[in-house]
Amino acid sequence: MIDFPYIRDLVHSTPSKIVLLVVDGLGGAPHPKTGKSELETASLPHLDRLARDSTCGLTVPVAPGITPGSGPGHMALFGYDPVKYLLGRGVLEALGIGVALSDGDVAARGNFCSVDGDGRILDRRAGRISTEESAPLVQKLAAIKVPGAELTVHPVKDHRFVMVLRGDDFGDGVSGTDPEANGVAPLPAVSLSQEAQHTAEVVNRFVSQARDILRGQPKANMVLLRGFSRLPRLPSVASRYALNPAAIAAYPMYRGLAQLVGMTVLRTSATFDDELVTLETTFAQHDFFFIHYKPADAAGEDGDFDAKVRALEALDEHIPRLLDLKPDVLVVAGDHATPAILKAHGWQPVPLLVHSALTKNDGVHEFSERACRQGGLGVIPATGVMMLALAHAGKLHKFGP
Amino acid sequence: MIDFPYIRDLVHSTPSKIVLLVVDGLGGAPHPKTGKSELETASLPHLDRLARDSTCGLTVPVAPGITPGSGPGHMALFGYDPVKYLLGRGVLEALGIGVALSDGDVAARGNFCSVDGDGRILDRRAGRISTEESAPLVQKLAAIKVPGAELTVHPVKDHRFVMVLRGDDFGDGVSGTDPEANGVAPLPAVSLSQEAQHTAEVVNRFVSQARDILRGQPKANMVLLRGFSRLPRLPSVASRYALNPAAIAAYPMYRGLAQLVGMTVLRTSATFDDELVTLETTFAQHDFFFIHYKPADAAGEDGDFDAKVRALEALDEHIPRLLDLKPDVLVVAGDHATPAILKAHGWQPVPLLVHSALTKNDGVHEFSERACRQGGLGVIPATGVMMLALAHAGKLHKFGP
Repeated sequence: MIDFPYIRDLVHSTPSKIVLLVVDGLGGAPHPKTGKSELETASLPHLDRLARDSTCGLTVPVAPGITPGSGPGHMALFGYDPVKYLLGRGVLEALGIGVALSDGDVAARGNFCSVDGDGRILDRRAGRISTEESAPLVQKLAAIKVPGAELTVHPVKDHRFVMVLRGDDFGDGVSGTDPEANGVAPLPAVSLSQEAQHTAEVVNRFVSQARDILRGQPKANMVLLRGFSRLPRLPSVASRYALNPAAIAAYPMYRGLAQLVGMTVLRTSATFDDELVTLETTFAQHDFFFIHYKPADAAGEDGDFDAKVRALEALDEHIPRLLDLKPDVLVVAGDHATPAILKAHGWQPVPLLVHSALTKNDGVHEFSERACRQGGLGVIPATGVMMLALAHAGKLHKFGP
Repeated sequence: MIDFPYIRDLVHSTPSKIVLLVVDGLGGAPHPKTGKSELETASLPHLDRLARDSTCGLTVPVAPGITPGSGPGHMALFGYDPVKYLLGRGVLEALGIGVALSDGDVAARGNFCSVDGDGRILDRRAGRISTEESAPLVQKLAAIKVPGAELTVHPVKDHRFVMVLRGDDFGDGVSGTDPEANGVAPLPAVSLSQEAQHTAEVVNRFVSQARDILRGQPKANMVLLRGFSRLPRLPSVASRYALNPAAIAAYPMYRGLAQLVGMTVLRTSATFDDELVTLETTFAQHDFFFIHYKPADAAGEDGDFDAKVRALEALDEHIPRLLDLKPDVLVVAGDHATPAILKAHGWQPVPLLVHSALTKNDGVHEFSERACRQGGLGVIPATGVMMLALAHAGKLHKFGP
């Protein structure tokens, strides 16, 4: 959880170029049968060769044992203390579906739920209704008007949606309406600060109208709201690190996170191949690129060990294209582990390699959890990655006389 | 950046003796041709044997990617958070030439520079004029009198000098006059706090007189001042660790740093041989010795890989003399890396060994970056070194009941 206070005094702009490849869910865990992790099982000739010519280590995304969501995982890699700069659930959910939030907007995560005749919750997720079922309900909610509030709702996957309040006088100090238990009624939204009193009233009027609109729906006849949050005020990557940074990511969540820290989010399409084309065609225009690879995480979340192995192997085939660009510094990192055995994000330290003209065989023979922990970087907080990249790029002055 | 808050409650005085050998610029980086670092290239039979009988690791001086100056590098090894206890440039420069600062003195780093007829800077370093040229100019500046201020100037190497203001009413919250660019005029000193208003005025009157005195000089006709700073208030090593500590260092900078943390600075001369004689003759009188070895850093700064290898080999020959004293704990550490390939200090983790009656083969076969990282200490903040030394010396009680 480093937040080095003098970083702005040390950075200086140079022509050198940094590419930060974030492999979502990079780290894994040993397969119960073979004892080998996804990275150890995969055939990764290019990454292994790169590791042998780099300095390697492991990153701890937040703290030992703490499993990060995508927000903290990426914030840490961008050099922002993920505990200090915690993003709200509403904001993250909005970023995840590409809703453009403005300063002052309050976003909340919504769930459709089911309640009985007395208003007590039967299922907090309405039987996880499909997106096909929930999207029309979101459209019904769009009809809700509360005087003095610009209010929008946006469908998310399955039983989820996002509500956004836009206006000058809204605050995010509002408690959620989800009691996190069945058999009880939803809670009223309560303002936790003076400035959020009006907000809580608007939320309660929205919920009340939603109840009326959804009454009689067979599966989802009520809503729960939580994670009221606003865009945080963040120092930008550009000013913090004296960079002209660009982000290349296909998924809205990561585009949103990059935008939040002030990166120029480049137009790209769905595949990593498309992302690489974007990198190649814009390489002259920026001195820092964050490029995001998603499939490894998705396979890990599915609990599909073999699919994760294949996703890593598919990435490996693209590594030569990254190297052909001859970035001065190439960093391969992960926002967190997604061990297939967990079917979810994990807390395990994540392999890291930093390649530059200053690196040479670090004694690490392959790019894996076990091998990288023998590397020269040691096991470090993920917030150190940006500083290492800057140092290897010759963009950091000495600290202290 | 550990600053263990209960350290004073845990320390207790014992007869056991600790020797902390600080090898300035100890760490290196692989030679691009051979892939071997300076330590790996050097023949170090005594250090290698010592490593095999010690517990080893790597220290991170400040934070990943952060390159420390000599101040932060040593403060960390003495157990002081180098970010919290950051020394000002003026103070460090004064310590570096052996100026005895008192509490309240404000020191500034001075540069001779050249300006054109309109007062715009032509060269911020006056063509890096030689010490022979600058020393007489410093003597001219010594004639400057500002009422209400005791003001001294001191020559440093080349175009540099130190100015010290002594008095009860000076503050260090003064901005520098160096615009850090050519083609513009020097800046006026501006007080950054109420208490430094008088100081800024005195500085500006000094600068104005310096301009008059230097007018017409062929190379250096103006001065720039920056890094206004006072001695920080530091807990002493003696009280913090219950030690009777001594420092053996030939260079003024390290003598000054040691004095700052309350060590008894012993009389010694220029070579490490002289320093060892001092250690041998005073060994009975202290329970902690900081002894400083400079040549490895100097060679690294020169970018001379082979000279650094030789400097390390020369050190190695002296190791038996240290062992002959039979210190209870011998620590070999570095304040930072100075890889020859960088021709400057580096951010790379630095080899560390701790030798005591409690250590035995740690699985480390030689004293090098790659080997030490496999040792039992792991990769730790440099601020942990003092606590490890105290622990191995039996000078630390248990923490907590």
